[in-house]
Formats: sequence, structure tokens, C-alpha cells
Amino acid sequence: MTETVMRGHGYYNTHSELQARTAVASDAALEDALQAVAIPPSGPIIIADFGCSQGRNSMRPMDRALTVIEGRAGAGREFMVVHIDQPGNDFASLFTLLDEDAASYRQGRPLVFGLAIGRSFYQPLLPAGSLTLGWSSIALHWLSRLPVALADHIWIPRGSAAERAAIAAVAAADWRAFLGHRMRELAPGGQLVLVLGAIDESGVSGLEALQDVANAALRGLVAEGRLAADRYAAMTIPSYPRTRAELEAPFRDGSLPGLRLDALEISAPPSPMAVRWAADRDDAAFADTMTGFFLAAFSPSLFGADTALDTAFAARLRAGVAASAADLARPITVGVLRVTRV
Amino acid sequence: MTETVMRGHGYYNTHSELQARTAVASDAALEDALQAVAIPPSGPIIIADFGCSQGRNSMRPMDRALTVIEGRAGAGREFMVVHIDQPGNDFASLFTLLDEDAASYRQGRPLVFGLAIGRSFYQPLLPAGSLTLGWSSIALHWLSRLPVALADHIWIPRGSAAERAAIAAVAAADWRAFLGHRMRELAPGGQLVLVLGAIDESGVSGLEALQDVANAALRGLVAEGRLAADRYAAMTIPSYPRTRAELEAPFRDGSLPGLRLDALEISAPPSPMAVRWAADRDDAAFADTMTGFFLAAFSPSLFGADTALDTAFAARLRAGVAASAADLARPITVGVLRVTRV
Repeated sequence: MTETVMRGHGYYNTHSELQARTAVASDAALEDALQAVAIPPSGPIIIADFGCSQGRNSMRPMDRALTVIEGRAGAGREFMVVHIDQPGNDFASLFTLLDEDAASYRQGRPLVFGLAIGRSFYQPLLPAGSLTLGWSSIALHWLSRLPVALADHIWIPRGSAAERAAIAAVAAADWRAFLGHRMRELAPGGQLVLVLGAIDESGVSGLEALQDVANAALRGLVAEGRLAADRYAAMTIPSYPRTRAELEAPFRDGSLPGLRLDALEISAPPSPMAVRWAADRDDAAFADTMTGFFLAAFSPSLFGADTALDTAFAARLRAGVAASAADLARPITVGVLRVTRV
Repeated sequence: MTETVMRGHGYYNTHSELQARTAVASDAALEDALQAVAIPPSGPIIIADFGCSQGRNSMRPMDRALTVIEGRAGAGREFMVVHIDQPGNDFASLFTLLDEDAASYRQGRPLVFGLAIGRSFYQPLLPAGSLTLGWSSIALHWLSRLPVALADHIWIPRGSAAERAAIAAVAAADWRAFLGHRMRELAPGGQLVLVLGAIDESGVSGLEALQDVANAALRGLVAEGRLAADRYAAMTIPSYPRTRAELEAPFRDGSLPGLRLDALEISAPPSPMAVRWAADRDDAAFADTMTGFFLAAFSPSLFGADTALDTAFAARLRAGVAASAADLARPITVGVLRVTRV
């Protein structure tokens, strides 16, 4: 998986409100999956959370999943909730949250055990037929690798046609790899609910304007001599929002006979930051929130551990966002899929 | 569990040769357990590694366990190897080692999956009856908490009678808690192999002389004004080597009816550092190795993240060790237990 250094010490947990709210859009799909999922007749029930980061945004859906499955399965059943992310993920924050935070799904549930796997979710992760429910929120647009860096931008949808074609091929392979491994791991009647960055019918991801401001901030740093031109040229956020056709492709061509796509909805739920800005028109507060969001989500991809550059960039990004809040206060496109292991 | 900050970036992996060699002493117990263990008739086989740290010393015993159980269980069986340590453990190094190191037990084993739990092993960790084999090496002498700090030393066996009595009570409760949770988690016929710091019949842990040198080094820092007296007074290594009677107690009083102690051997295998020193009498090399060992094992308990103090201490410790190598080149007492879930 592309090497990105997640900010530690819970930074992501406190700057990922957008991701949390976006997950709300997937509530209906999760409820459908929880009613449809086949409960194994005995033994621990395994639930997987693909792309957990520090865990904050997994608590609500995992809690809901446990509540419904506990009700359906009957008292006394035990669960293993397996959280998956890259090897260098901040698992310390995840484990601390699981045991010490009031929001943890483990509160009051002595029969629910939390585990972690530090490995790309484009790899095999669990034994065959062991998985009852798989959940992933705002993670599957991250690519396993970048075959090329964008010369003139950092956001893949803004790349040249040739750049985008090369990256689309990796994105397609990643998507097939993820689904193929999960097909093997899911038990019959098992369910997947996947929430990820997407492109709507008009070609919009909703992040274009923010990424243009970020790109301009970086170019400003290059112009000032604070960022080397070749370093800028190597900067590309390895995040790939997919179209409906791309998301449906592996289900259509017979390559995943064990998986059935039951629902795919692409929508643009209102961003809580945009809603707030529309109400108060507080450009500075909006810029703070958007900058926090951007840094938590994308700064590791751009700056790694270079905090000086990160800080210089953040100041420029904040100013750029404040100057064009009206243009940036817009919804972000997400896709929500429900998949059944047949 | 007592908060200790494990040095990250694989430091422990490269300074834990003693722990690795000590584990060799447990080979016989592991072989017996692997022959005796009941193989579940179907489903993934779960193996647990209690106190994995960064994982280096778990690779050899896990590899051996997999080889034997694969042979007994037949082809195609899948495994989940669950590594347990405190929430703040360096799981990044563990996961990287599992997937990228030639020594990993996963090499050539696509049906073996590695997982982690960041939680004290004095807590419940796994579903009832789910565990086939549990392994722990040089971890169970770490206490869950310290009821009192030693006023005049850092090493519990050197504390006053009252201090030792208070700590012994915690150690006894920890030992019962560990065994009680494992009794619930092990499947019938499951096995535990536990290797831990111990005290021999003459009352010797083998670390007394090293800890005296370390304590003198700290007192030297106090005398120089580089370490506050109250901070020194609060320093106690939360490690408790147990006697045979202490190890046997929960098996004798009927409180663990599901566990049978099949073997308990207390021995003092030759330390590789001591053997090397006896051959070459290289005091400086010996001091380097012993200092590295001490820092990897105990520095987090004493200094946390205070690297300046750690560095000042290391210089004094190294000098002290070099000056009394003959006294320090001795074996360290370990206990090896094999336990069956009946």
C-alpha cells in the first residue's frame, strides 16, 4: 500500500468529522446488511473493519452491527471485531479507544473482543469462510500504489488523460483484489457494506475546488523557493474516487461469482462544514475546519513527517480556503455498496 | 498494566538476544505441548502469543508450533496467530516483521494470518474455548501495577520485607488472573507453554548483581544532582520473578479446576553474554551487550521518554558493568511451565 504516515496521538480521530458524517449516509445499507446477514450457527462471529485508522469512526457502525446481530443471534454469542489498516497505522490510539473511551462498542460488552491486523486490505487477511460482516468507510479510494505522479497537480481527477489512465488501471486492479480476497473470506450469506469516495454522473467528486486551492498553495511554496520543484512534481495524493461503472465492473464480468452487488448508491450527502458555513458565513471558522480535514486526510501523503513544510502549507491552505469559502462549501460524492456472499 | 513505553523502531528486536536464548530452554516444553495439544476438528486454529513486544522472539516458537500442528492437522488448515501486548506496544514493527522479514513464520504460509490485540494479558482477550495453543516468553513477570515503589532500590527482590509483601500480593493476583482468563479461552485439550523470570531454590533470580549496578548508577546521578531524589524514590521496575511455590499456588488450591500443571522446571540456562565473556574476557564488549539488554528490557520502566536521563544512566551503567564483569557474567533464572486445559 502506498506509504503514508498517519498522524499519531489521535489527530485523525479529532479531525475526521466529515468522514463520520459521511458514514451516516450508509446507515440504510448497514441496516439492510444486518437484517440480511447469515448468522453462523455456532462459534465466535467475526466482523471486520477495513481501513480503521485510529478507530473513532468505526465505533458507531460497529456498535450498531453488534446490537442487531446480538439480537438476532441470541444471548451469549461472542464476537471478534477485527480492525485492519496499514502496518504503520496508529493502533495504539485504536486500542486505547477500544478499552477506555465511552464511545467504544466494547462498553458493557464483555463478550466482544477487539483485534487488529496491520496489513493492506488488498491482501488476504482472514481464513476462508470466517467472516460474517465486513465494513469499510472512506478507505477504499486509497490506492495500493501510484504508477505515476501527476506533473501539474496533486489530485488524480485533475491529472492528464495519460496519467489518469495509468492510475485507473491500478485502481481497477485494487478494487478487484479487495473484492476477490473478501469473497474467499466471507461465509455464505455474509455481507459487505462499503463506503468510499466516488464520482457522480456529471464527473464530480466534490473535492476538486479544495484540491485546486491546496495545489495552488503548494505552487506558491514552490514559487517562494520553500518547496523544491521536483519534490512538488512527485506529490500526488494516492486517492482515487471511482465512477459507478468502475465500481460495478468486477460484478458484471463474472470474475467474482461468489459476490452479488445488491445495492450501489452514489450520492453527495451535505457536508457538515458546508452546512455550518451556509448558516453562519464564518469564513475563518470554515477555513480552520477544512484545513484540519485536509491535513488529517491528505497531509501524510504529501509531507510525510516534514512538519515544517506541513505548517507552511497549512497557513496558505487556510488563507486560500477562507478566500473562497462559497466555492468550497459543497457536498462530497460518496458511493455506498452492499454486497452479499452467495 | 503498568505503563511502560517500549522503545520503538525495533530497538527491542535488536537487543533481546538474552530473551531469545532463554526461550531455547523452553524447547522441550513446547515440543511436549505440540504433541499433546488437541487439534480442533475444523475451522481456523488459534495460537496466541502473550507479550509479543516487537515480535522477533516469537518467530521461532511460532514457526515450530505451526510446523508441528500443520503436520498433525493435515494440509489446508488455516491459522490465526494472535499477538498480545499493551496498547502502546510497537505493533508497527511487529506487523512489518510478519510480512517482510525472512524470519517471519508467515513466509511460505499463505494460510496463516497474524493479528494483534493491544490489551493487558491480565484481561480477557479471546472467545471462550477458542484457543488451541498459548505461548508466552519472558513477559509474565511484568506486573499489572505497583502497589508501592521501593524506597532504596529499583529491583523488587531487593526491596524491604514490607515492600515485597505488598508487591507479592499483586503478583499473586496477576498470576491467577492470567491463568483464569486462559482457562476460559482454551479449548479442551489446549495447551499453554509459559516462560518467565523466576527465583531458584536458593532465592536467586540471577539479575541481582546487574540491578545493584544499575541502582548504584541511579544513586550516582542523584548524588550529582542530575536526578531528583523523589524521582529516584519513585523508580521501581515492575518485574516480579516468582518462586516455585508462587507459580504452583493457583494449581494447588483448586481455584483453577480446568487447568492442569503438567510440568514446571526452574533453571538457569547459560546466558550467551556470560558465555562469550568467559571465553574472551572482553569487559567492554560485555558491558555494551549488558547495557543494551538492560535498556531494552528496563529503561522504559525507569525513564519513560526521558532520553537525556536514559543516556546519562547508560554511560554509568556501562562503566559499572565493565568494572565488575566477573560478578555479572552469570545465568538468569527462568521458569518454564506446561499447562493443559482439561
